[in-house]
Amino acid sequence: MLQPELKIRRDKIRWLMAQQGIDAALITCNVNMLYTYGRVVSGYLYLPLNAPARLFVKRPNNISGEHIFAIRKPEQILELLKENNLPLPTKLMLEGDELPYSEYNRLAGMFPDAEIVNGTPIIRQARSIKTPVEVELFRRSGAAHARAYNNIPSVYRHGMTDLELSIEIERLMRLEGCLGIFRVFGQSMEIFMGSLLTGDNAAAPSPYDFALGGEGFDPALPGGANGTVLQEGHSVMVDLGGNFNGYMGDMSRVFSIGKLKEEAYIAHQVCLDIQEQIAAMAQPGVVCEDLYNAAIDLVTQAGFANYFMGITQQARFIGHGIGLEINEAPVLAPRVKQKLEPGMVFALEPKIVLPGIGPVGIENSWVVTTEGVEKLTICNEEIIEL
Amino acid sequence: MLQPELKIRRDKIRWLMAQQGIDAALITCNVNMLYTYGRVVSGYLYLPLNAPARLFVKRPNNISGEHIFAIRKPEQILELLKENNLPLPTKLMLEGDELPYSEYNRLAGMFPDAEIVNGTPIIRQARSIKTPVEVELFRRSGAAHARAYNNIPSVYRHGMTDLELSIEIERLMRLEGCLGIFRVFGQSMEIFMGSLLTGDNAAAPSPYDFALGGEGFDPALPGGANGTVLQEGHSVMVDLGGNFNGYMGDMSRVFSIGKLKEEAYIAHQVCLDIQEQIAAMAQPGVVCEDLYNAAIDLVTQAGFANYFMGITQQARFIGHGIGLEINEAPVLAPRVKQKLEPGMVFALEPKIVLPGIGPVGIENSWVVTTEGVEKLTICNEEIIEL
Repeated sequence: MLQPELKIRRDKIRWLMAQQGIDAALITCNVNMLYTYGRVVSGYLYLPLNAPARLFVKRPNNISGEHIFAIRKPEQILELLKENNLPLPTKLMLEGDELPYSEYNRLAGMFPDAEIVNGTPIIRQARSIKTPVEVELFRRSGAAHARAYNNIPSVYRHGMTDLELSIEIERLMRLEGCLGIFRVFGQSMEIFMGSLLTGDNAAAPSPYDFALGGEGFDPALPGGANGTVLQEGHSVMVDLGGNFNGYMGDMSRVFSIGKLKEEAYIAHQVCLDIQEQIAAMAQPGVVCEDLYNAAIDLVTQAGFANYFMGITQQARFIGHGIGLEINEAPVLAPRVKQKLEPGMVFALEPKIVLPGIGPVGIENSWVVTTEGVEKLTICNEEIIEL
Repeated sequence: MLQPELKIRRDKIRWLMAQQGIDAALITCNVNMLYTYGRVVSGYLYLPLNAPARLFVKRPNNISGEHIFAIRKPEQILELLKENNLPLPTKLMLEGDELPYSEYNRLAGMFPDAEIVNGTPIIRQARSIKTPVEVELFRRSGAAHARAYNNIPSVYRHGMTDLELSIEIERLMRLEGCLGIFRVFGQSMEIFMGSLLTGDNAAAPSPYDFALGGEGFDPALPGGANGTVLQEGHSVMVDLGGNFNGYMGDMSRVFSIGKLKEEAYIAHQVCLDIQEQIAAMAQPGVVCEDLYNAAIDLVTQAGFANYFMGITQQARFIGHGIGLEINEAPVLAPRVKQKLEPGMVFALEPKIVLPGIGPVGIENSWVVTTEGVEKLTICNEEIIEL
């Protein structure tokens, strides 16, 4: 990652810090380190409002340079700041929604004279507006994601289970360069590489707040494929995370085993229409909940409201910001008054689950431009027969 | 998971709570929920010292039963405890090393009259001694892991990269039922399904505190395979996580492309000898650091100390507890005075990295019995030529 790009990102955070009178940030969580330093290291980026950032690194032991200090433990940071005549913070922000309680307190305790505040909302706000470099990374990731999905028909074999098909698609994704790791904000949501859902398993409620659930095949990870044999007349939705370079591109596509009942194609078209209308509405200044409500109106008029985003347990959103994590700001959900801004990247995923058939619908990743939105995941959107 | 098994686990936690005068625990992190409730749910297990546990569940919405309450937000818990005439805690433990700072404070704020303490060390201590049911899950997981590794020679093709071979082995693991997800304690260590290291990449320092590093192929996840073409005379170490049922079995095996220099077989035998000697020493009452020091003595006598557990960045442990997470207690490392106890399960991984050749050595999962230790991962331990 080039220094000017990192400077832009750090200055976005600094600009928000300044508005709250915060004069330094201490950043250590992996995604925030990746964002502000360009790679994951085990250590701490100390980001003063009015001076260059300093990296205090524990591991790896082969990083050096101006403004980089090797440490064994975070308590050395204060001493090193003093030795290097750096001003100590009076109001310091830490990653309060991400750091474990005891780790936050350990870091806070190093600065007894400073007021300590939760900096996670600021960092997430900065991260929610992508730079052109980040958008380009999403674009590349979308292209790789599409290459993998285009090969899905080639790995299908008659009589395989949802899990077996998922495993072959995971391999296609990895061969295209997918890192595999699926980063989620918050400690409660977990998933392997994504989900593949067929038939009525798509309606199985899960503990995780993803768009659809699925039973999974073990109580240790109750989500996604559950070992159902893929059957004639059932649909299959593939929704694997597109993390090819740190950025979690998101794209779902639907396949069918043979032909589906007519109702499925109608419902799928409803989702495509919702996507088209929401994309036409979306532009800077539009309020997130208005997009959600417009989607609900459309699906209600179409008669599929009871099957939208699940059946017995319905997800209460139609889209979500994406970035280094799968669940960033903004969220396209009820009561979210946030407005779209240029540079935001979000996944839009209108989906309908039909009893006895399975899931239909669509998901793409979009970037908000100055005039509207642009699709970052270009790939056939029809239901493809396997 | 059967109720009697869950009762045993909960009572192990209660026994430790009682010693510290803690009269209730509120458990919400996924691995601890899996441990105490038998499956992951989004919600809270309220565990009083002297009354049955209560589950407050947000998602999925299809769980019900005696002592189970549906909630939308944790603040409803206090009200429900009062409505059901349950005693409120005077000293409550929360998962302080796992919950984010702000979430911990939110939960703590619900109980203004209670003293709040960090319960993570207690839960981890309980989890470190496995029940017979847990050991059996490890045993099954070890058998599945071995079946996948036995098929590795069948997926090797001349000219493939480390990453391509890794992808094929990931697929073998998944086809044997591996859940894929790799759970780690703490927010700083990340890995996809595990690592595959060949040649000098095995010595590349990484930010993560795993036994060996590797450069990785993207700064977003700097560990493991880096795209090196597998070459004649190089070794390949496969170390994928064996999570087939929630329990993170751990096993590494070494392969060679053609024959290796004689030195590699000598070093490999040194690691096998270390494994044998440490396994012979290990029994209840033995101090962890004594096992570490014995391994260091052996590898030093053999002349490989400078290449043990890495080269420029050496890991300072030879083994680690495993369970629902890859890094549980105990740790076989310097200055760890903890003693082995029956029911502990640990990975023992003496490994040597040879410049110009790559990694050799061994890793198996072991359970501490009343008399010694028993190997849970049974699989050919020689260097297998591909």
